[in-house]
Amino acid sequence: MSSSHLGTPKGTRDFSPQTMAKRQYIFNQIRAVFEKFAFLPLETPSMENLSTLTGKYGDEGDQLLYKILDSGDFLKNTSLEDYQGGSGSLLTKIASKGLRYDLTIPFARYVVMNRHHITFPFKRYQMQPVWRADRPQKGRYREFYQCDADVIGTESLLCEAEIVAMINEVFDLLGVRDFSIQINHRKLLNGISEVIGAPGKQAELAVSLDKLSKIGTEKVLEELLDKGFDKEQLDRLVPVFDLSGSWPELRQELEQFLNKSPDGAKGIADLEEIHNLILKLGIKNSSVTVNPTLARGLTYYTGTIFEVTIEDSGVGSVCGGGRYDDLTGIFGMPGVSGVGISFGVDRIYDAMEQIGLFPEQNLILAQVLLIAMDDHSQEFALGLLSRLRSREISAELYPDRAKLKKPLNYANKKGIPTVVLIGSEEIDSGKLTVKHMVSGEQERQSEEQLINFLVQGT
Amino acid sequence: MSSSHLGTPKGTRDFSPQTMAKRQYIFNQIRAVFEKFAFLPLETPSMENLSTLTGKYGDEGDQLLYKILDSGDFLKNTSLEDYQGGSGSLLTKIASKGLRYDLTIPFARYVVMNRHHITFPFKRYQMQPVWRADRPQKGRYREFYQCDADVIGTESLLCEAEIVAMINEVFDLLGVRDFSIQINHRKLLNGISEVIGAPGKQAELAVSLDKLSKIGTEKVLEELLDKGFDKEQLDRLVPVFDLSGSWPELRQELEQFLNKSPDGAKGIADLEEIHNLILKLGIKNSSVTVNPTLARGLTYYTGTIFEVTIEDSGVGSVCGGGRYDDLTGIFGMPGVSGVGISFGVDRIYDAMEQIGLFPEQNLILAQVLLIAMDDHSQEFALGLLSRLRSREISAELYPDRAKLKKPLNYANKKGIPTVVLIGSEEIDSGKLTVKHMVSGEQERQSEEQLINFLVQGT
Repeated sequence: MSSSHLGTPKGTRDFSPQTMAKRQYIFNQIRAVFEKFAFLPLETPSMENLSTLTGKYGDEGDQLLYKILDSGDFLKNTSLEDYQGGSGSLLTKIASKGLRYDLTIPFARYVVMNRHHITFPFKRYQMQPVWRADRPQKGRYREFYQCDADVIGTESLLCEAEIVAMINEVFDLLGVRDFSIQINHRKLLNGISEVIGAPGKQAELAVSLDKLSKIGTEKVLEELLDKGFDKEQLDRLVPVFDLSGSWPELRQELEQFLNKSPDGAKGIADLEEIHNLILKLGIKNSSVTVNPTLARGLTYYTGTIFEVTIEDSGVGSVCGGGRYDDLTGIFGMPGVSGVGISFGVDRIYDAMEQIGLFPEQNLILAQVLLIAMDDHSQEFALGLLSRLRSREISAELYPDRAKLKKPLNYANKKGIPTVVLIGSEEIDSGKLTVKHMVSGEQERQSEEQLINFLVQGT
Repeated sequence: MSSSHLGTPKGTRDFSPQTMAKRQYIFNQIRAVFEKFAFLPLETPSMENLSTLTGKYGDEGDQLLYKILDSGDFLKNTSLEDYQGGSGSLLTKIASKGLRYDLTIPFARYVVMNRHHITFPFKRYQMQPVWRADRPQKGRYREFYQCDADVIGTESLLCEAEIVAMINEVFDLLGVRDFSIQINHRKLLNGISEVIGAPGKQAELAVSLDKLSKIGTEKVLEELLDKGFDKEQLDRLVPVFDLSGSWPELRQELEQFLNKSPDGAKGIADLEEIHNLILKLGIKNSSVTVNPTLARGLTYYTGTIFEVTIEDSGVGSVCGGGRYDDLTGIFGMPGVSGVGISFGVDRIYDAMEQIGLFPEQNLILAQVLLIAMDDHSQEFALGLLSRLRSREISAELYPDRAKLKKPLNYANKKGIPTVVLIGSEEIDSGKLTVKHMVSGEQERQSEEQLINFLVQGT
């Protein structure tokens, strides 16, 4: 195979050491917040049975699932008829597993399978890749990481307030200033669809509203017309697009608008309680806005929904979630409410790169490179190498015998700040030649001086 | 779907918070050693083009690759003839991607693709899952993690010695005492096959020798007879099985046995140099043994090979690797030598569990659970919660209003050591009721006392 044909599959990427260092930085901050908020780690397999995955993400989701071909002679249980029936007909006979599409459905499966051993409310976090056969574009990959935190087994709105607190803390830690948390409530959407005269059509409404920021008011209204909403209903809907302001103002407007809807009233009451809990938690809530048209695509949400965007980032939502009253019901365990949030590390990375938020130097580096000038010096260098590492100093010995230029170039390219030259003179005198790569300065140090310098930086 | 049918695909597993904590412990130790030895992190996609993967792991490997069905109408480019040609014929038309089988081939692809930006020798580590459609059994899973460290772009045997040092340090850190590192050299195997009169048949020889510890001498000899080795050749081979002893003794025996083989002599010389480098690095080499029959299955090794086992662990090799002279050659970049090692975290976990080596308490816990006794106390509790977390104390507030029994049971089950009860009396007096869950003792503390206790344990 010629190297010119090499590549990774479309929508997937390699992560170089430089990129890895920045990604690890994001993962570590998110994990620290999850653990401080007392969420416990969980991991589920990359593959799930297709019976677990299909039908959970809507028709479009089913299309985007990656299916894994059964191993061995995968055609052995198929007939000519299956083949002639087309892909849909053959699929179920040749593929029984698929790749994880999100972390929420596998979590629900885990909870149902382990319900007798789990202490509820169960707070778990999970940081793993998911796969979607989506059309790749800016900020959208076919393999990407989700970092999820969910609480299941309580209806307490404290969980919603804590999610807002976690979002605030994560982006604060990452140094992201201009982020905005939008909140809405699915019952508010139910209320809106009741009030405009289209009760029961909240799902269709939500799917179209979800596109508001992408395609604009005109197109959304056109789409709703196509879906069978009539002119009169849309006329009643349009004022909702203009609702805005701080929560106390907005609440009044919503109370008027949703006047006769019990679902609407429940939505408003929940948002009011969350607003108060956020205040009591002492969170600067300037970043939190209630947006009555926020919808989110996923069908399983029934209560609060969240979405986070970063200004001038060039990517869509970087974080989202919501409350689901009956997620485990699909697996035979009804009536367990939960709420969760998912951070999209790949988009957060893209946004931080775009804005220039990564600390200058966070690549894991060797602190020191040893260079043995001849065969005789190698023995001493090997001993020194071990002694440095036993002091938890990240160190390496240039492995090849080469002119000085090559190992110095190696240190430079790798960003190793200190180089130690070891020859017979250094061994005899007990004074090592220490070269500081940034300044180019060179000095003679004893081993003890070198270790002190590397450990304490003095 | 009824919950009784729920499960994960065969050979895959969920990792509960308890298991996750122990797995993270292993990952963290391995990562720390890799970084101390100045390896840089890399990640590659879970999916690779099948053209990258097939033909790299032998026929058996090709069978064990998981193939991903092309998305959309995957049959659109197939004909009835393809279907009638069977699985093998249809496969290439409906699946163009596969799941990663190991971390070495993707690493080689990465190096070739990025050769103009990489500083050689390139030291990278990679810790990611791999997938094999293998028959599941004890210690063998279909999804498992590999933790690899490779150096590419140098022939220096210092790399081999450093690998031995890393293995020693990893198992030392994990508290594993009875591990043994076996080393051999592929050129020694070449030499053996020359000397017994079967030159060029080292690959067949290696595949059979690899099974020595599993199926025993008799069966290996039978297999070799089936492969066309004759009685005379096997008679000459058998004495090799009995070679043992410390390296200086073994070296003499091997020098005699391999007397006329240049490859054999090169193998012995390399092992001798590695032996000396290990000594100079100051590694207690009691755990290192040269085993002339160690073979390892993979075809791309050309020099030193390594394998690590843990006594009484009930699992096979927990770590393995070797030198490859031309791994990148398959992707069009010949003549670049490298050497690497792979730690199998899943088997190390199983072994440590079997021997009982995990520290008692390494689950990430909430340090403290707050319980608000009534609605009025919740406001105070929320403020306290924020203040505790701002001191980096992992804390949670029980979200539901319930009799005391339920939250106390929650703390017990989750292993949270400290519980703080907050009612109007506590708020008025400024003295919180602090309950120590292990002793059952209860005391009154000011907030300052509580924070000092949680931060410093006093």
